[in-house]
Amino acid sequence: MLRSDPEAATEAEKTMPKMNAFYAQSGGVTAVINATACGVIETARKHKNRIANVYAGRNGIIGALVEDMIDTNKETARTIAGLRHTPGGAFGSARYKLKGIDENRAEYERLIEVFRAHDIGYFFYNGGNDSMDTAHKVSLISKRMGFPVQCLGIPKTVDNDLPITDNCPGFGSVAKYVAVSTKEAALDVLSMAKTSTKVFVLEVMGRHAGWIAAAGGLAGSGAPGEPPHIILFPEVPFNQRAFLRKVRESVEKYDYCVIVVSEGAAYKNGKFLAEAGTRDAFGHAQLGGVAPVVALMVRDKLGYKYHYAVADYLQRSARHIASATDVKQAYAVGQAAVKMALAGETAVMPVIKRISDSPYRWKIDKAPLSRIANKEKMLPKRYISKDGFSITAAARRYLEPLVRGEDYPPYINGLPNYVTLKNVPVRKRLNTKFVV
Amino acid sequence: MLRSDPEAATEAEKTMPKMNAFYAQSGGVTAVINATACGVIETARKHKNRIANVYAGRNGIIGALVEDMIDTNKETARTIAGLRHTPGGAFGSARYKLKGIDENRAEYERLIEVFRAHDIGYFFYNGGNDSMDTAHKVSLISKRMGFPVQCLGIPKTVDNDLPITDNCPGFGSVAKYVAVSTKEAALDVLSMAKTSTKVFVLEVMGRHAGWIAAAGGLAGSGAPGEPPHIILFPEVPFNQRAFLRKVRESVEKYDYCVIVVSEGAAYKNGKFLAEAGTRDAFGHAQLGGVAPVVALMVRDKLGYKYHYAVADYLQRSARHIASATDVKQAYAVGQAAVKMALAGETAVMPVIKRISDSPYRWKIDKAPLSRIANKEKMLPKRYISKDGFSITAAARRYLEPLVRGEDYPPYINGLPNYVTLKNVPVRKRLNTKFVV
Repeated sequence: MLRSDPEAATEAEKTMPKMNAFYAQSGGVTAVINATACGVIETARKHKNRIANVYAGRNGIIGALVEDMIDTNKETARTIAGLRHTPGGAFGSARYKLKGIDENRAEYERLIEVFRAHDIGYFFYNGGNDSMDTAHKVSLISKRMGFPVQCLGIPKTVDNDLPITDNCPGFGSVAKYVAVSTKEAALDVLSMAKTSTKVFVLEVMGRHAGWIAAAGGLAGSGAPGEPPHIILFPEVPFNQRAFLRKVRESVEKYDYCVIVVSEGAAYKNGKFLAEAGTRDAFGHAQLGGVAPVVALMVRDKLGYKYHYAVADYLQRSARHIASATDVKQAYAVGQAAVKMALAGETAVMPVIKRISDSPYRWKIDKAPLSRIANKEKMLPKRYISKDGFSITAAARRYLEPLVRGEDYPPYINGLPNYVTLKNVPVRKRLNTKFVV
Repeated sequence: MLRSDPEAATEAEKTMPKMNAFYAQSGGVTAVINATACGVIETARKHKNRIANVYAGRNGIIGALVEDMIDTNKETARTIAGLRHTPGGAFGSARYKLKGIDENRAEYERLIEVFRAHDIGYFFYNGGNDSMDTAHKVSLISKRMGFPVQCLGIPKTVDNDLPITDNCPGFGSVAKYVAVSTKEAALDVLSMAKTSTKVFVLEVMGRHAGWIAAAGGLAGSGAPGEPPHIILFPEVPFNQRAFLRKVRESVEKYDYCVIVVSEGAAYKNGKFLAEAGTRDAFGHAQLGGVAPVVALMVRDKLGYKYHYAVADYLQRSARHIASATDVKQAYAVGQAAVKMALAGETAVMPVIKRISDSPYRWKIDKAPLSRIANKEKMLPKRYISKDGFSITAAARRYLEPLVRGEDYPPYINGLPNYVTLKNVPVRKRLNTKFVV
């Protein structure tokens, strides 16, 4: 599928029309989404005969709608290379979902209008499920409107909930952050348990999928007594009695209890623990977050001294402890998307295909966007222990390679040297305004 | 003061009686307190003719009181070396303050009884203000009881609030963690600000002193618009109007606002913001933590979308992002304490003396425990900007060298390879029980 020498332009390529590419970041950003941008831009730059310039959407797809695009040719090779080690979204991302074509035809038409005005023949959309849906729709409508754009999805989500791909770029680094942080905090709590904190709760992201929470399980070997002692997955309905029994057991046996809780942890009736705490269970008003709800439950019912942390954005921006595997894969999907586009593909997304667990081997494959759009991949049952509070050996086999390797950013005076782009706007060609 | 060749035992030393040393960790642990333990044990092992063994208190001073001590001679040189890169307290720490001698003579007498039974001639107490007070008292009472023990304090506190010493081991690494995390989260928030989160709040430790919060200021250059846009120090009474004005200004000018808030931030009347939120200000019950209080204030008064993180133990156990300066100094104070003891000193603590900011140069000096015990060093006024929301150039000059350098732990399969000690107990010699 991919050419063996990516550097060389073929004879056929040389006669093909030169177009621009549009690249946009979508949804919550990650520690490595810029590594993907780096992969896209560096690869496109190697094919200047086919891709004249990569325009990036300022604030994601909104940049295309309002014709506010960034001229990435204005950035030096050195700066673009620096994207590989810079967290966040360098061009700005957006939580903005294009509605169905029938509901909001104007937006799609506007997109094509802008693409046409700027000779954009390639659309690279770097995001999660929603974005794959959008990319798919743009590919359809662009054809219908007589200006066919090659639309490539590029996977990105810390939640790891995209189907088909073995894992999603962004996840490995959050997984590493959560596993390392849990391991470190557990050592802290264990030292203090005799006279102080006995229970520590770490709240992690993941929405409705327990992938990130599961990664906390890598903090210990899985042997009895190793932290975390409890993981609360969104996939397992919360049972307060069983939970409290497990906390007490852990404190009595091992002196302490480390809990990793997913923000999506919920009761059997679907009510989130975070919500549930609001008034019902404790008579307290909810200030946000599931960690304090769980911590207070432990205090009120068992009387143990507790501490809790809410990792929030720290976990998904922690480029300083990114997984080398993740960085490589994030770059690779960007690179592959450009190569697929140049090979004439459209409405597809590069996916990561695992060849073997140990030694870990993977390659880039592709999947049609229609099979990915709007689908969520939950943590499979076989990754969750029978009691519902920890991960299985199968989960370990899956997770371990993804957190492997360190890829430290360069430092200056004790702080990571993250790059800042000039983000020079592309000159507008349309006189029309579009309000989003 | 210190001998130039620490390896060589002098003739005088060879004739001096051989005693054991007792080492205990006290109070909240840090990412580098074990590096200090490593400095103590490695240095003591070089003077076997004077210090036969280092006994460590299991769970700090409690281990001495209940005669539950750890035989560090049972650990290999390799394991002890591994302490340098292992966070938490390897022997267990304790939040346990010995009361005044008159109030609780029995405890002090018990300590001396245990020390006498185990030929302990050196007492190394690794902690903060309270611990320095205890070490001082033990030195006094041991003399009075006719079994003089050389008592050395060794500084440790993430809060950086010990007097005389330029900084405290433990602080530099938290400072680095907070600065790096703030920088990373700020990049994340900025990418999302157009359509999503505009205000991000990071809660940090520090008790009544704003040192850790100040370290957040290193995330940006200090130029206008650079994050963090607001720091809430415990030293500056919280003014809600001024705060909200500043938040709005930041969002209007720079699209986003990053706030670092100290757990000790308080109103003019001394009431903590964390408490204040409980019922008074918002009618909500307090689930702990000042970050949600600040975040909700922003939402309720300004309507901005917010996110917040509570770093809690993650910040002080984050050995993976420790400051190399901090690790070096943590080791150095442990090493120096042993050398001082061997040089006949008692009731003193090694302190870090800054010789110059740039290039950063420092040396180890000493100070009497009586001058350190129970005193807190607040962030000086000249380190806080006029408006009370950021740090000054002077603060930067002070803080920067402390976060400089990376000292990564070794990794296995993507996770830090932290050491676990055998912690073999020393055989008891007393028949008496002591209940703490």
